[in-house]
Parts: sequence; structure tokens; C-alpha cells
Amino acid sequence: MKRIAYGGDYNPEQWPEEVWDRDYEAFELAGIDTLTVGVFAWAHLQPAEDRYDFDVLDAVVERAAAEGRRIVLATPTGAMPPWLAHAYPNACRVDFEGRRHVYGQRHNACPSDPDFRRLSVALAGRLARRYGDNPAVVAWHVGNEYGGACWCPACGAAFHDWLRKRYGGLDRLNHAWNTTFWSHTFTDWEQVPPPNALSEHWRGPNHTAFQGITLDYRRFMSDALLGGFVAEKAAIREHVADTPVTTNFMGLYQPVDYHRWAPHLDFASWDNYPPEDPSPVRTAARMALAHGLIRGLKGGKPFWVMEQTPSTTASRDVNAVKRPGVLRLWSWQSVAHGADAVLYFQMRHSRGACEKYHGAVLDHAGRTDTRVFREVAALGAEFTRVGDAVLGARTPARVALLVDWDSWWAVEMSDGPNRNVRYVDVLAAYHRALWQANVPLDVVPVTADLGGYDVVVAPVLHMVKDDLAERVWDLVDRGGSFLATALSGRVDEDDNAFLADVPGPFAGLFGLRVDETDAQRPDVVNPVALGEVEHDARHVFEVIVPEPSTEVLGTYGADFYAGTPAVTRAARGRGSAWYVGTLLDDPGVAAVVRSVLDEHGLAGPLADVPD
Amino acid sequence: MKRIAYGGDYNPEQWPEEVWDRDYEAFELAGIDTLTVGVFAWAHLQPAEDRYDFDVLDAVVERAAAEGRRIVLATPTGAMPPWLAHAYPNACRVDFEGRRHVYGQRHNACPSDPDFRRLSVALAGRLARRYGDNPAVVAWHVGNEYGGACWCPACGAAFHDWLRKRYGGLDRLNHAWNTTFWSHTFTDWEQVPPPNALSEHWRGPNHTAFQGITLDYRRFMSDALLGGFVAEKAAIREHVADTPVTTNFMGLYQPVDYHRWAPHLDFASWDNYPPEDPSPVRTAARMALAHGLIRGLKGGKPFWVMEQTPSTTASRDVNAVKRPGVLRLWSWQSVAHGADAVLYFQMRHSRGACEKYHGAVLDHAGRTDTRVFREVAALGAEFTRVGDAVLGARTPARVALLVDWDSWWAVEMSDGPNRNVRYVDVLAAYHRALWQANVPLDVVPVTADLGGYDVVVAPVLHMVKDDLAERVWDLVDRGGSFLATALSGRVDEDDNAFLADVPGPFAGLFGLRVDETDAQRPDVVNPVALGEVEHDARHVFEVIVPEPSTEVLGTYGADFYAGTPAVTRAARGRGSAWYVGTLLDDPGVAAVVRSVLDEHGLAGPLADVPD
Amino acid sequence: MKRIAYGGDYNPEQWPEEVWDRDYEAFELAGIDTLTVGVFAWAHLQPAEDRYDFDVLDAVVERAAAEGRRIVLATPTGAMPPWLAHAYPNACRVDFEGRRHVYGQRHNACPSDPDFRRLSVALAGRLARRYGDNPAVVAWHVGNEYGGACWCPACGAAFHDWLRKRYGGLDRLNHAWNTTFWSHTFTDWEQVPPPNALSEHWRGPNHTAFQGITLDYRRFMSDALLGGFVAEKAAIREHVADTPVTTNFMGLYQPVDYHRWAPHLDFASWDNYPPEDPSPVRTAARMALAHGLIRGLKGGKPFWVMEQTPSTTASRDVNAVKRPGVLRLWSWQSVAHGADAVLYFQMRHSRGACEKYHGAVLDHAGRTDTRVFREVAALGAEFTRVGDAVLGARTPARVALLVDWDSWWAVEMSDGPNRNVRYVDVLAAYHRALWQANVPLDVVPVTADLGGYDVVVAPVLHMVKDDLAERVWDLVDRGGSFLATALSGRVDEDDNAFLADVPGPFAGLFGLRVDETDAQRPDVVNPVALGEVEHDARHVFEVIVPEPSTEVLGTYGADFYAGTPAVTRAARGRGSAWYVGTLLDDPGVAAVVRSVLDEHGLAGPLADVPD
Ligand SMILES: [Zn+2]
Ligand SMILES: [Zn+2]
Ligand SMILES: [Zn+2]
Repeated sequence: MKRIAYGGDYNPEQWPEEVWDRDYEAFELAGIDTLTVGVFAWAHLQPAEDRYDFDVLDAVVERAAAEGRRIVLATPTGAMPPWLAHAYPNACRVDFEGRRHVYGQRHNACPSDPDFRRLSVALAGRLARRYGDNPAVVAWHVGNEYGGACWCPACGAAFHDWLRKRYGGLDRLNHAWNTTFWSHTFTDWEQVPPPNALSEHWRGPNHTAFQGITLDYRRFMSDALLGGFVAEKAAIREHVADTPVTTNFMGLYQPVDYHRWAPHLDFASWDNYPPEDPSPVRTAARMALAHGLIRGLKGGKPFWVMEQTPSTTASRDVNAVKRPGVLRLWSWQSVAHGADAVLYFQMRHSRGACEKYHGAVLDHAGRTDTRVFREVAALGAEFTRVGDAVLGARTPARVALLVDWDSWWAVEMSDGPNRNVRYVDVLAAYHRALWQANVPLDVVPVTADLGGYDVVVAPVLHMVKDDLAERVWDLVDRGGSFLATALSGRVDEDDNAFLADVPGPFAGLFGLRVDETDAQRPDVVNPVALGEVEHDARHVFEVIVPEPSTEVLGTYGADFYAGTPAVTRAARGRGSAWYVGTLLDDPGVAAVVRSVLDEHGLAGPLADVPD
Repeated sequence: MKRIAYGGDYNPEQWPEEVWDRDYEAFELAGIDTLTVGVFAWAHLQPAEDRYDFDVLDAVVERAAAEGRRIVLATPTGAMPPWLAHAYPNACRVDFEGRRHVYGQRHNACPSDPDFRRLSVALAGRLARRYGDNPAVVAWHVGNEYGGACWCPACGAAFHDWLRKRYGGLDRLNHAWNTTFWSHTFTDWEQVPPPNALSEHWRGPNHTAFQGITLDYRRFMSDALLGGFVAEKAAIREHVADTPVTTNFMGLYQPVDYHRWAPHLDFASWDNYPPEDPSPVRTAARMALAHGLIRGLKGGKPFWVMEQTPSTTASRDVNAVKRPGVLRLWSWQSVAHGADAVLYFQMRHSRGACEKYHGAVLDHAGRTDTRVFREVAALGAEFTRVGDAVLGARTPARVALLVDWDSWWAVEMSDGPNRNVRYVDVLAAYHRALWQANVPLDVVPVTADLGGYDVVVAPVLHMVKDDLAERVWDLVDRGGSFLATALSGRVDEDDNAFLADVPGPFAGLFGLRVDETDAQRPDVVNPVALGEVEHDARHVFEVIVPEPSTEVLGTYGADFYAGTPAVTRAARGRGSAWYVGTLLDDPGVAAVVRSVLDEHGLAGPLADVPD
Repeated sequence: MKRIAYGGDYNPEQWPEEVWDRDYEAFELAGIDTLTVGVFAWAHLQPAEDRYDFDVLDAVVERAAAEGRRIVLATPTGAMPPWLAHAYPNACRVDFEGRRHVYGQRHNACPSDPDFRRLSVALAGRLARRYGDNPAVVAWHVGNEYGGACWCPACGAAFHDWLRKRYGGLDRLNHAWNTTFWSHTFTDWEQVPPPNALSEHWRGPNHTAFQGITLDYRRFMSDALLGGFVAEKAAIREHVADTPVTTNFMGLYQPVDYHRWAPHLDFASWDNYPPEDPSPVRTAARMALAHGLIRGLKGGKPFWVMEQTPSTTASRDVNAVKRPGVLRLWSWQSVAHGADAVLYFQMRHSRGACEKYHGAVLDHAGRTDTRVFREVAALGAEFTRVGDAVLGARTPARVALLVDWDSWWAVEMSDGPNRNVRYVDVLAAYHRALWQANVPLDVVPVTADLGGYDVVVAPVLHMVKDDLAERVWDLVDRGGSFLATALSGRVDEDDNAFLADVPGPFAGLFGLRVDETDAQRPDVVNPVALGEVEHDARHVFEVIVPEPSTEVLGTYGADFYAGTPAVTRAARGRGSAWYVGTLLDDPGVAAVVRSVLDEHGLAGPLADVPD
């Protein structure tokens, strides 16, 4: 049964068993071979703390196996049952506003609550013991869309432990957080509050008086959530030797540092709900970036699309249906980017609550003659025909795009220079240029081995940590090209400014220093000439003082720094270091990126095909 | 003294008694014969829990009676005194954010607090005993503008009781709320939290993870507030045999289901402060809709305009004065729609606090030569001249417009398809078409007897409950016309989707099924051709599969469903069923509505008079 | 060493001592002679409640003194250390939403907390004892940028005390607050809650049900914050006989009534960070207004610019650099307006946290060849050259602009007529007209002696209190001109409407009454003809009934009050009273203001020089 896994979330416990027959008839019509079960089944599986009940799940699993379907078995810990919250109120989170929540919604368990941890791990273990040997179970799916954050006292205490491990003592912590500023010197671990609206923050999560505190809390919270995954996975591994374990990521999701999570997953998977964008090309590029990011989590190995909607979302303000052919297009794009599975949320429309209008393979009437079902079935037939032809495929790349959650967090929580700069916007702009150049590309963390690349592109590499600067020097020395942008090289691992010329450890590499950084409202454009062509620059304008040997490729056309460098290139070793000191529009980014690729003859064969 | 009641809120306790003489001189000049007294007098009437003091109110009532004025006597329970909140902190509400309020403002007592209930009912009883026999008292006015909501523990417990009565057991509750979704199966009543920002909600009151929970809380809260009214009315009835009892509604006010309240009022009344709209015609139509709704509460019997401003409001961002003649125009519109009373808030400008700039018959200087006073007095003279000519008038109608709070709540709290759809906007659009056709119209609840109507129009009839579908079939069978719009027939009484083709119980009636529902941003227009004319459709576009016999009256002009039906008509029995699968602009709505009316020759004689 | 003090905030405790040498080399290059030290040093100075440590500050002070610098010594009480908040949680504020904060940020100590008061005063006293005799210390700088507000129980109790002093008894309080309205009669001081989101407020701090309560809380809070300053100053005075004591104000900062604070400061100082405005001329005028306000605090005596940025701010959404020459321009403007000191925040870029990108004289690399440093040094050289030529200069003025915090508060928290009216916008419009007329101007409180002025301009003099009306009559009687605008003369000291014609005590002076006040959205313009020229009026339109003798200078051009007076002049005594019943655009305001000035031949010699 080697083929692209095709199917999705299946919650037959929401319907009477007579409907199940019709479900499988439809699956047969649609070529569906893979079912994700149990995602939100906790209340069924454990109706009370001292009582488990696997009858329904047994029936679901048995039927699926009997029908020859592959099963992705989920631990249901993404949504706790009411009895748990009622018995253990501290399992509910305290929010950014400092309020303890009570029961409701999902994805909202405190990651530091010992009772929630104990009960979720116990249930994962029970499930593993019961279903671990079932050969139909091809993967384990822990929790669901981990995310959010908690600021409760238990998390505060866990944060103290995390800080103790990181810093050893308060002296190092005070130095890292630069607490001398505004008299924040901590003399007892207990004095450190979770940074939220009641302590360091003003206006919102990105507005903090102490970036170092907030940055560490983000790191801690990502680790704390990971702790839940790791603990459930360990419980599963007590009973399950080899079946791979994963959880479904959400692409470019800021609150969780997937690079820190990646080593703990057996394979990567994600839910593909691209943000609304009226441009289909930009949407396609955005999905390509996310696919690349996810594939990059496990060194380029294939990943799964764990969820996508057959038709509409429901939770957005406006939920358009996917136009005819879009489902097919996006699904094949996933496969082309390395997906070995294309799964839907959801197989059948939910009867009630907030996802009753979320797209499904089968509608409320259970029809197989809807447009949506017909498209699903046609794609299923294609997947059946293609068989195992593309499974496990990999795409070697000589170009890397660096992504760094720390830089993302740091630049967006920075006071100054410009709150309108969005890390992902700049990242996506450079990615689009690479994508449209049709060049094989890896999207990798800043810790990645850069040894195999000719070109490394690092948009808004705000933070420079560990040995990154050395590895970049090595890349350039051996003939590679490195490109970075405005707001790079600003802070160290603790978000303290380098006490040196900007861009810090890279100033020598790029052969320049940034004398000052201007910022302007979004409607202010400064034209930057690259060769004969002028491009629009916006938001941030670094005033650059180049070394004499540095080549000036583009200059500002306006303001008091008109005529000074905006884009530069420095020959270093056998390679080159490119610096773009502002945020260019798409054609401007493309022009720079194509120049870099051209140094290595890397633009792809379809680079100049119009969209 | 049979005439249109004319006057309004009169709070002479705010001024020294020597001013009262001037008040009555002015009332005489203005033809004012009716005074509403006591609305916020609790602190005066009961300065401490164990002490009542009726001296001032006695004087007010005696003077008014002596001057031959009719008195509307209010219970002052719309605003509690400070001592009450101080002694009983739980009388203050817990808000949507989960915060217990302390003393302040008005209209903010917890409807479930036993102390507030006891004290408010006791005071109502005392007032009734003291003034119930006074022949000048022509009506009782309980509380004021009931509204808002509370999420306190007492309301939570009362919600549990309400749920127990509604569902009997938790199994039925879990089924109604579809709790299997997201593991919400409740195993103890105590586990059910009031749905607010700390439990099921995200972003705001219309964004909930479980629509069923939130919907029931809305129903419960409307009933809980009603409980206060009913209890006060009962206390009044212990001493007052016949004088009618009412409370002042607020027109199209979403938080309170006036249809559930209506049976408990002896007559309906409301406060006419139409929302700002730069178009005078739209404003007039909006008031006509609200008048119709209020008249519909008591089967078409006359109602009272309990408040309107003589000139400006104060609480809005921008408070324009009423242009010359507008007061007269709106007041006569009220009478034309069935008002037997036209009352103002307020007779004299308040000296301080938040309504000191709210319009008044008499300004701070007490002048009778202001423009406002002159207009008030001129209208008073007209009312005097008209005498009892229009009192008790009724307007038989063969057309009904259905309004349903449940549908209003459900469609606006729905996740998907489009948050930009506003129930009242669609309702008002269809109402405007009927109003401009100059057809006598009843605005009635979905529980109304449809037996007397030829045409029933049901915009966004999202929820279909009880025997409504049968009654609609009956209407059509006997030759009537029924019209519904996009987003109708979607959910049952519990907000669960019908497990059937859309529009559920009406699919057969309309002779079609909705295959899918597209949604687009407000700037996206799809032209819909009706006959020779194209109209703009927006927001929601249902892709309709008609039965062969169904007449297609309009088709989409754009997108992948171009050429498919947008507006249909099915002949059924001796009548017809019309379906509009999108939201049309005003001319489009008018075209459809006029076609329906024309089937019955119902457009009014002034239908084609320009505005 | 008599010269304009030049320098700024210097926090060398954030760097190792070897950097200090380079600091002083740079100061020498830049002509910097004044250093503000200790502003946020509490954690250093008192690392635990029972332990003080002056070693670092000793070194800083000794070095500065040895280098011949003037020292501004700050008490560090603008930011409490963590140990304090941890030991005394009530030192943290309760915010407008009713939430007790925990440790974080700065400027957030409860002004009513006895422990914070005790500890801050003790530290101020210790500092004074230790450094009070040092001749290098030329000024004391208490706290930092006092502001914000607290709504905690301690503040609530202090509010009760403040109210008892103000009103004596509850009867007077109830009368002042007009509590009869909405049943708010307080019968016990304890019943009065701090007015915030949990009590009287809706939507925000300017939306209150009881203006009187909120207004008094603003006054109380300004006084409560002042209490902290006064107590620290007293502690300093125990050890320091003559060195002047100040604190740094923030210009037109609404929460604190600087007029109530002024008597307690030995000289006035402020931080000049003008609000973003794309127009350099408007920005210059805005700074001129603030300079004038600050100079007016101490009867026209010179003041200090305690902070300005050498280049960029950091806390705004978009932080532009100061264009070349702007630093020089603004600094000399300060001096021209009476500043005897021009100081920067900050001397060296902070290493980390929220001000690491805030402009500094020295950047993170410590360079002296940046554009910013060069401009700082050039200005320093100019200041050195000018020596003591301008020190202590005063500018006699015959024109006064009235500013009144009470009116500012009252008009912006008013329900009606128009929330889009901003006190400072109107104030600044009239100020710009005077500034562009190049007339020497005093910006003074409404309590100022008006005896020396020929022209007094009072935009939005909403509240009229004490003997102001008499003093204005005197001004006009002896030949002066008085000008007021729409929304003047509306309320008394308690924010109760005058029970008289509008504009209350001024109706006779202006020879008119306002019959009604219309308000319109910002896009509605009513043209007002002044002579031959039409000007745009917006927002508020008072419909004026003039006395026969009143001269009508401008009339409305549109709406139902077209042709009625918008601008009037009444001859009174030997002078004149001008009234502008609407909000005119800049040319309209200029036309009126120039007419008034022309009566006294007061337009300056450069009045008609283009910007
Ligand atoms: Zn937690
Ligand atoms: Zn309650
Ligand atoms: Zn406080």
C-alpha cells in the first residue's frame, strides 16, 4: 500500500454507527486510505479521572483496519475534558492579561501544571499500550497544534528553574537582561515575574520594557510546551518501538520555535491554512516557504501535510471556498515540496459548534455529488495512479534561506526603529525572489551546516549567536555568497546591542558600518537605483558608511542621505558579501537576489516564465 | 383627557421646588399632559436599607395630579443606590471579561442576586401600595432599558437551573451542544461555566468555540432579566388591579429577546434613538422597522414612544441637533405607526453628569423661547388639536416580515461563512423595500400565526424551530408567497446543522439545494441579473442546484459560478416560494420584493412616489 | 562657568569604568558641562531594604566633579527595585481596568502606598545628606516624568480623605457631583469607589457616567503624585539649603496639572519630545507652546530642557532620525523661549532593553565621528561661544494665552457635544496664530494676574471658576481684549452646567446667548465668512442669538443656521470681547486673532514673514 497518504481527520464518534458504512463507501469513491482518529476524544476515552472507556475508539480503529485504512492515532490532549478543569483549575492557563481562565475552548492547558501533565501522559501511555501493536497504526500524532502561552504561577516557577539552568546565577541573568537599566537588578529568583500586561508589558505582547525578559519567556514557553510533547512521546515509546511520532505544526507560527522542537519529532508535519492574500501567486509562494521551512526541520526529509481544508475555513472573518482546481493545485504543490501525505481536516462536516461550517470531504447531507467531493475524489484517483513514484523524494539545493525564531521575536518586540517591520514579510519577500528564480532552495535554521551551500540569504538576521558569524565567514571564504538585510547584526543572544559598529560581527564582512538608521511611515518611499532601474524602498533606511573597497550597487535617491549606499557588495576570500540596508519592493529584492544567484549560475530553468 | 400622551421624563427632585412653578408654566405652553416620574429615584426613596422616604415623590405626584397631568410612575430599579452595592457587592455584575464590578453607572444589577431582587421588589411593592390608587397614575414603568448581561457565579448557578429545566439531563444537553466536538462532554452541571472571555470566547461576545453554549446563555440572560421585571410587576399587582405595566424597550436591541418578554407587558413601549445614518430616508425606514417590531410585540395594539430626545443625544461621539421640523416629522411618524404616546427624555436639562448635554424641553436657563421649546410647543398644540382621533388605531396588513432573535444571535456568532453579515442590515434592507412599496406590514416573530398573510418575508432565517416549516408550507399551499434569503434554514433550535441539504427543512419548498456557500470581502461584487437589470451582490454567494421545475429569476454574473441561479421561485401548492441566495443591494432587494408583492397586487398607492 | 548648561542623562554604572575615560574625552570634544546622574539607580544605591551602597555613585560624582562638570543629582524613585515590589506588593499600582500590577517597567509606584513613600523619602534624604554639600551638584531632580494613575484601595482611601477636605460633608459632595441623577447619593464615604472601568467608566478614561467624580479623581491623583515629590523635596531640604529642586515635566501632559505643581518646584524643567507631525512648522509651533507653558509655570522665569533626543526616539511606532540641522534648530528655539539648559537623554546608547535604540550622543561603538556626534559637538561649541549672554533672559508680553487643566479634563470627558474635539488641538490652533503673528506671548493659568495684559485668548475655556469672570471683566473694562471660543463658559468648578444662558458668566460680556450647539462629523464643513474670506468651520457649531449691540464679524454659510453669527465682537467698557462659536481652520483662527491683536497694534515685526 505504498502511496501518498490521502485522507484526514475522522471523528465518527460524533455520528451513529450506521453512518460509518456510508463514510467508507465515500472513502472508497475518493481513494482515501488514511484516517486520523482520536484527536479530541479525551472525554470519550476517559469520562472521569478514574475511568477509561475505549469502546468507541476500539470500534473506530477496528473498522478502519478492517477496511484496510492506515491509521494516524492521535493522543487527544489538545483539548481537556470538563471534569479535568473542574477538578484541577490550575490546568487552565493564566493569560497575557493575568487572568486565570476556566473551562472552555481547546489548546489551553498550562504546560507547567503537574496534574495536566500526569493525566495527559497517562492517557497517552494507555493508548500506546492498547493500540501500539496494531499494524494499521502508521503514525502517532501527539496533541494538536501546540501553541499559545501561559503566565500562571506554576509557569512562573518553571521559568525560574529554566533561568537557573540557563544562567546559573542572578549575576549572569542581570547582565544578560541589562537590568541596571531602570533599576531592575533582581536579587532573588522569586522577584522575576512572568512578563505580561501586569508586569513588563505595555500595549501588547510585543511591547515590553525589558526585551531580554520577554525573549527568555518566549524561549521558555516554547520549551515548556515541548515538554508536554516529549513526555507524551516517552509514554508512547514505552509501548511502541518504531512507529513514528509527530505533531502537527502550523507553518510560520511565531509562538513556538519549531527549530528547537524538530529533533524530538520522528517526522515533521503541518497544517496548511495559508493566510488570506488576494494574490494567488503570493499565496503559492507563501505555502512554498512554509513547506520549505517544515521540510528543513528534519534535514530535508519528506514531511506530511496533516491538515488542509477541502473547501473553506470557518474561523476567519470571511471564508471563501477554494476555487475549482485549487485543491488539486495546492495538493500537488505540497507533494512537489516533499509531502508524502496530503490529509484533510475534516472527513465529514461537524454537526455543531465552531467548525460546523469548516470545509469537509462530506457535507452535512453526506453527498458524494458535491463539487467538493468530486474534486477530492479526482485527486484521490490521481494519487492512486501515481503510486509510490514520488515517495521519499529529496531535492538537493545549493541555496539556503535562513530562518531564526530568535531574530523574529527580537526584531518584532524591539522598541525602535520601526514597528511596521514584520519579520515574515521580509523573509517572504526574499523567498519569493528565490522561488520565482526557480532555484532549488533549503529553508534552514541559523544553526544549519552551511557547508553545502553556494548562496545563503539571511533576511533580518537581527540576532547573531553562537558561531554563526564564523560559519558565514567560512562560506564566503570558500567562494560562497552571503546576503543580509537591514536590521541584521544588531543584537547578541541576549538581545543586547553589540558594543561595536553595526552590523556587529558582520561589519567587517560587509565592509561597511551603519552610521544611523532612519525609519519612516509606510507611505514614505525612497527610490533606490540598482543599475538603471529605480526600486521603492520603505520603512527602514540605514545610512551606510562603506569601506573604500566595498562596491556600491545601489544608492538612495532621496532625503538627506540621497546618493549614499543602500545596497553593497564586498569581495571577501573567494566569495562575496551582499548587504541591503533597506526594505526593497519585490522587483528590487528580485534584482538583488538574481544578481547573487547569477554569480553562481543558479537561477532555475523556469526562472523567467511568467506566473 | 383622551389624547396622544405628550410629555416625558420629569425629575424635579433635582431642582428646588421654586423651579417647579416655572416647569408647569412651560408645560402649559407646550401642551404637555404626561409626566414620567421616579425613574432614578431609589436613593431618594430609600436612603438606607431600613428607611424609606416618600416625601419628595409625594410632592411631585401631588403637584402633577393637582395640575391635571397624567403620571407614568416608574420603579427606580434601573439604578441602584450606593448603599446597596456597598452592603451587597454581589449585586454588581461580573462582566464579559470576568471582572466583578463595583458601584457605578446604572443598568448593572446582577439579575440573579437575591438581595437585589428582594430589595427591588420590596420597593416596587411599596410604591404600588402608596400610589396605586392615585387616579393620575395611568401607567407603571418598571426599571429602565433592561439590557446587558452578567457572568457572575450566581448567574452561573441560575444558568445551571435554567439548563436543567430545558434539558432535563446532561445527556440531552451534551447532544444539544454537540459536546463530542473538542471533548466538551459535561459530566456534572457544575462544570458548565458562564461562556465569556475566560471560558469559551475569543476576541469578543460573538466569537465562541461552542455556539450552543453561548446561544443558551443569551436566552438564559434574557430570561433572567425578565425575571426582575416579572417580579416587580407581581409586587405592583398586589396593590394595583388594572393600571397597565410596561417597561421601555430599545427597538432592535440584540441582547434581550423582546418576543420572549412581550407576553409579560401590558402594553409595549420603547425609546426612539435611531442609529446615526447620514441618509434621512434610511433613518426614517429604520424607525419604521423598529416601530413595527414594537407594535408587533402585542399583536398590533398601539404602543408608546416612552423616550425620544427633543434635540440631541449626548452619549455618542458626535451629537447633532435635530434639524428644524425633524422632531415634528419623527413624532407624527410614531403616531402613524401606532404610538398613542410621544414622550421625551427629558423635560429639563440635567444639571450635571453624563446627560447634562442630552437634549431637553427646557434648557439649563429654563427658557421657553429656544428653537427647541418652540418646536415642542408647536407639536403639543397639534396633538391637542388632533385629540383622540388616532388613539387605538390599528392597521390590518396582509404582509409580514419575520424577526427572530435566535437567528440574529446564531448567525452573528457563527464561525463562517462571513462575519461581515449583520442580521439587522439584511432585515432592514428587506424592510426598506416593503416600506418603500408603501404596503401595510406587520413585523412579527417566527411564532406568529401566519394565517392572515398573503406574503411572508424572512430575511436570514438562519434557525428553523418548532413548527415553523409546517406553517410556511401551509401559507404557500393556500396561495401565499414566502421569501427567504441566503443563510436561511441552516440550523435547528440548538444551532446544530440540519443533517440534510441546505436550506434544511425548506430545501423541498424552494426546490433547490445549496451546494456550497462562498464568501467574499465587502469590496467584491458579483453582478446578479434580474430580468434586464444587473444588481450588485456582496458578502455571501450560495451556489444553488435547482430542481428542474424551479424557476431561475436571477443568475450570478461572475466567478466560477457565473450563470448559476442566485434568485429562484418555486410554484408550490397554490402559492410560491422565493429564494435569494445572496445579499443584494437595495435596488435588487426592491426588485425581488416588488415581484412578490405584485403576485398579490399588494404594492401600496404611494409605492412609486420619490422619497 | 556661567553658560547654557549642556549635557544630559549619564548612566556610567551601566558600563565598566574604563569606558568612562572615553566618555569624558567625548564630552570634552562636545562642550558638555552638565551631567544628570542617578535617575534609575535605586537598585544600585539600595540593593536591599536594610542596605545602602553609594560606592558607584560616589565614583560617578567624584569623577564628574573632578572633571569640572556640573551635576544634576536625581533621586532614583522613578523606578523601584524588584526587592521593593516583592516585599511590598501594594507599592505596585492598580490600573484603570482594576488590576493590581506586579513588578515591571517604571513610573508605576502607587502614590498612596506608605511603604513606597517611606522608602523613597528615606533614600532621597540619604542622597541629600551624602551629596548635598558637593558644590558640583547644581540641581536636584526628583523622580522622573511623574504621571499615570492608580486606582488601588489605598488610593481610594486617600481619595476619601481628599474629598473630606474638599467638601467637608457628604451633602456638599452629593451636590457637587449632582448625585441625584441616576440615584448616586452617597451616604458613607466608603461607598465612593475610585472611578475606573469597574465602576463609573465605560469604553475608557474619558467616558464616565459621573464627570464630577472622575474630575475630582484626576485632581486628587495629580495631588497624590505631587505628594511624593513634595515629600522627597522636604527630605532633601533637611540637608540641602539652597540648591534648587525640580522634576522633569512632559509639556502638554494631561494626567498631571502642572499649574498645581508649579509652586512646589524651584525652577521648571521639561522633556522635549514633540508629537509626530509631518509639518516642521507645526512641530516648531507645538514646541513653542510647550516651552511657553513651562516658562509660564514660574512666572516667566527661565526653565531647563531636561531631556531631548540627539537623534531618534525608540518607543514610537516609527522613529525617524532628526534631519541634519534640526537638533541645532530645536535647541536654539528652546533657548530663545527661555531655556537656560539644553540636555539630552542620553549620553551613551543603552546596551539593552527598551531604550537601546533611543538616540544618544555616543553610539554603541562609542564613535565621535558619527553625524549625530558631530552635530552635538558643533552645537556645544556654539553654546560655549555664546557664554552667559542669554542666561536668565525674560520676555515681557502683553498677550496671554490661558491654559486650564480643569477645562482640558472636563471638555474631553464630557458626554456631548463632540468627542472629536481635543482641547490641545484648539489651544494649539490659537497658539499658532499668535506665534505666527510673532507677538511676545505668555502662556498662563486661569489663575494668573491678568493685570499686565492687553489681550487674553482663552480657547475652550470650558470651566469658569473662582473669580475668573471678574478678572476678565476688569481686563475688558480697562481697555483689553478678551477672546474665547465655542464650548467656553459651560460648567462651574464641579462640572455642573451653569443654570443660565450659555456661555454662563460670560454671556453678558460677549453680548449673546448660545441657543443650541450643533455637532458634526469631521468631514462636515460649514463655511464661515469673515469679511470677504470664507473659512472652514468644523466639529461644533454654536447657534448664537446676539444682543442688538453685538457686532457680528462672521456668519455660518450653511445648514439651517446659515446667516446666523459664528464670530462676534462686543464693545465693553474701554475694551472688547470676542467670541468664536465654532472651530475654525488655521486661516480662520489667524484672521480673528490678527484682528484682535491689531486693536492693540500688537502683531510682531516678523508677523508676515513666510514660514
Ligand atoms: Zn501555566
Ligand atoms: Zn450575575
Ligand atoms: Zn494606589
